[in-house]
Amino acid sequence: MSKFPSEIILRNEHKIVFVVMDGLGGLPLSKGGQTEMEAAKTPNLDKLVTKNVCGCFDPLLPGITPGSGPAHLSLFGYDALELPVGRGLLAALGIDFRVQPEDVCIRVNFCTLDAGGRITDRRAGRISDEENKRLLGIVREKLVAPKGVEVFLETVSEHRALMVLRSDQLDDNVADTDPQALNVAPLPAKMAGKFAGKDSYTTNLVNDLLEQVRAILATADSPANFMLLRGFAKKKPMPSFEEKWGCKAGAIAGYPMYRGLARLVGMEVVADPTEPAELAKAAAKHLPDFDFLFVHFKYTDKKGEDGDFEGKVTQIEAFDAAVPAFAELNAAALVITADHSTPAKMAVHSWHPVPVLIVSDLARPDDVKNFGERVMAHGGLGRQTMINLMPLVLAHAGRLTKFGA
Amino acid sequence: MSKFPSEIILRNEHKIVFVVMDGLGGLPLSKGGQTEMEAAKTPNLDKLVTKNVCGCFDPLLPGITPGSGPAHLSLFGYDALELPVGRGLLAALGIDFRVQPEDVCIRVNFCTLDAGGRITDRRAGRISDEENKRLLGIVREKLVAPKGVEVFLETVSEHRALMVLRSDQLDDNVADTDPQALNVAPLPAKMAGKFAGKDSYTTNLVNDLLEQVRAILATADSPANFMLLRGFAKKKPMPSFEEKWGCKAGAIAGYPMYRGLARLVGMEVVADPTEPAELAKAAAKHLPDFDFLFVHFKYTDKKGEDGDFEGKVTQIEAFDAAVPAFAELNAAALVITADHSTPAKMAVHSWHPVPVLIVSDLARPDDVKNFGERVMAHGGLGRQTMINLMPLVLAHAGRLTKFGA
Repeated sequence: MSKFPSEIILRNEHKIVFVVMDGLGGLPLSKGGQTEMEAAKTPNLDKLVTKNVCGCFDPLLPGITPGSGPAHLSLFGYDALELPVGRGLLAALGIDFRVQPEDVCIRVNFCTLDAGGRITDRRAGRISDEENKRLLGIVREKLVAPKGVEVFLETVSEHRALMVLRSDQLDDNVADTDPQALNVAPLPAKMAGKFAGKDSYTTNLVNDLLEQVRAILATADSPANFMLLRGFAKKKPMPSFEEKWGCKAGAIAGYPMYRGLARLVGMEVVADPTEPAELAKAAAKHLPDFDFLFVHFKYTDKKGEDGDFEGKVTQIEAFDAAVPAFAELNAAALVITADHSTPAKMAVHSWHPVPVLIVSDLARPDDVKNFGERVMAHGGLGRQTMINLMPLVLAHAGRLTKFGA
Repeated sequence: MSKFPSEIILRNEHKIVFVVMDGLGGLPLSKGGQTEMEAAKTPNLDKLVTKNVCGCFDPLLPGITPGSGPAHLSLFGYDALELPVGRGLLAALGIDFRVQPEDVCIRVNFCTLDAGGRITDRRAGRISDEENKRLLGIVREKLVAPKGVEVFLETVSEHRALMVLRSDQLDDNVADTDPQALNVAPLPAKMAGKFAGKDSYTTNLVNDLLEQVRAILATADSPANFMLLRGFAKKKPMPSFEEKWGCKAGAIAGYPMYRGLARLVGMEVVADPTEPAELAKAAAKHLPDFDFLFVHFKYTDKKGEDGDFEGKVTQIEAFDAAVPAFAELNAAALVITADHSTPAKMAVHSWHPVPVLIVSDLARPDDVKNFGERVMAHGGLGRQTMINLMPLVLAHAGRLTKFGA
């Protein structure tokens, strides 16, 4: 794709409200049936669809199912295939850890080793969150990091935790120490990629920390007597959302992962409700302070992941009830879309393209009258990749001037 | 376009049957009429279209008419504009010659020279296939190649033949020796491109062989007393289909060109029927041995090239009769599409986009109910370029996992 000509971006007072209904797109449970969106009664969304412009966009590329990280980067107008969000970084974002540019983020699994140092349980019997916190407390207290290196340890859930190494001396070129197998010893930290198997300053440091952890946990009286490390990742350098699109951006999201993703691109997180009416109320409150408000609604995805078709229908209807409150914000552009599909039939993310609705005085009307995947695929925005959405939104908000004379 | 992230490819038992109806797309004979697909009665295809997802894809880029080589490479998910199939190579594939990576393939035209060595007929009076074979027999017997170089000579048809030089010392940077004009001498072999006009080891070798050919044919008592060489081409290095898409691939094709193209990407050619019912039977027999079966049906293109509208309609209907047999294979994804359009009205390949149908339990339904270009252009897959098809097919077959977390 050609590069977006950023010189055409205008800074003005025109507001954008950008609502993501997570995992919105779906499938019929059986051939000939309706999708979740089609089954839901959505009079308010239907009214907006009728008077505005819609389409159906591929989150990344046709056929590719995105994780939450790439899907949101793509919504925010970044080329997510070129800008991977490492798993350690995503774990940090998922608990809303404030990641600094120099941080190396690492996913930690507590595990159980036998007397010979071999792994007998890669999840340490799925210890409780409380036990996880207790153990991290002990490790935090006793662990000694070299000068210039800060070590953060945070509970995620059960046997899962986050380790962050903060130092400008470290890199993230470290292979997983989790051998993904039982009855073998954990792997020592070694470099990955083309230097695979070699040592570096970072791997030496990690191995030293791991030996301390082993000694500390040996006395902690827990099935969790060691840590497996995975997904070493730093934040990749990237322009902030404001640098990229000329919009001061705020975020409203009830779940930590999406607050983390918003912060990753420099948005200011201002509220964390989860219910549609509360999201709209928070948007009304904070819109005066921002050019762009990202509003994240989680429950459509949650019900999809549960394989709960009826539950997802109910959540779409619940969101619809709050739509008038979003419309009354009178933003120059109100966007209602999704990061990816999560069909209840599949109970996982999928590649199916997602509906996009842009509400704006400048929307060229199309013939679509209902909020549903198959009709919105015929909307005036057509079928595109999601990376095109931000320029379209800025245009509909009157925040782009013409290119060339 | 961003690079496809090959790490998301899964290897599993899910099967893909990929049917190419060559030259399927068409045009009405006169304004206001129906295309060949629209005129054909296709109850079985219509049933599949109704319950699944379709679209209309550009073989390469909008407006570009592809030859068979690029069209199939694009179907197989290769960027055919970056990966040209040289004409000599295509000639070799067209007679199912087993091309090795070191082979330089060359199109040969027998021609007639006068006593002064000037060309009087660039096609040597279109000699018969038998005369072609007789002459090549004589040349083969007498031609002496330097040590380390094997020379293959194969009849194509009439005055057309194939020469293949097999040696790891040779390259394909050689300009045509055919001056494309009468009453001038054939050109000596010289380098092409930025070294145009210069000699190389390869051009010296070719010129030596041509002088031998001239002497041999002088005694053969034929209007064909010399050879013009064109389209020097080696196979470009490229990943095999299996390396690229993680599918062990077989091919069923009645015509040598398509067997050659399948072999070019490393598919195993397992059968060569031409009739629809026989193609389906061969697919049923060989599907257990492969992840991906490419099935090629030629007659739609053949009738299109003949300008035979009714004949093409009949062939589409004949194929439709075999569609239940393809559906009964119960592949995770059954694809029915085309390499390019060959409207009977034009009697040549055209650029018009081609219909794509993906039959899968994971197909999101659209509103299309008939197998025809104009309705399928409104399908849920929309309008895209063909290089997107393979990722979509793998996704619908459950052979891709998600990108990022």
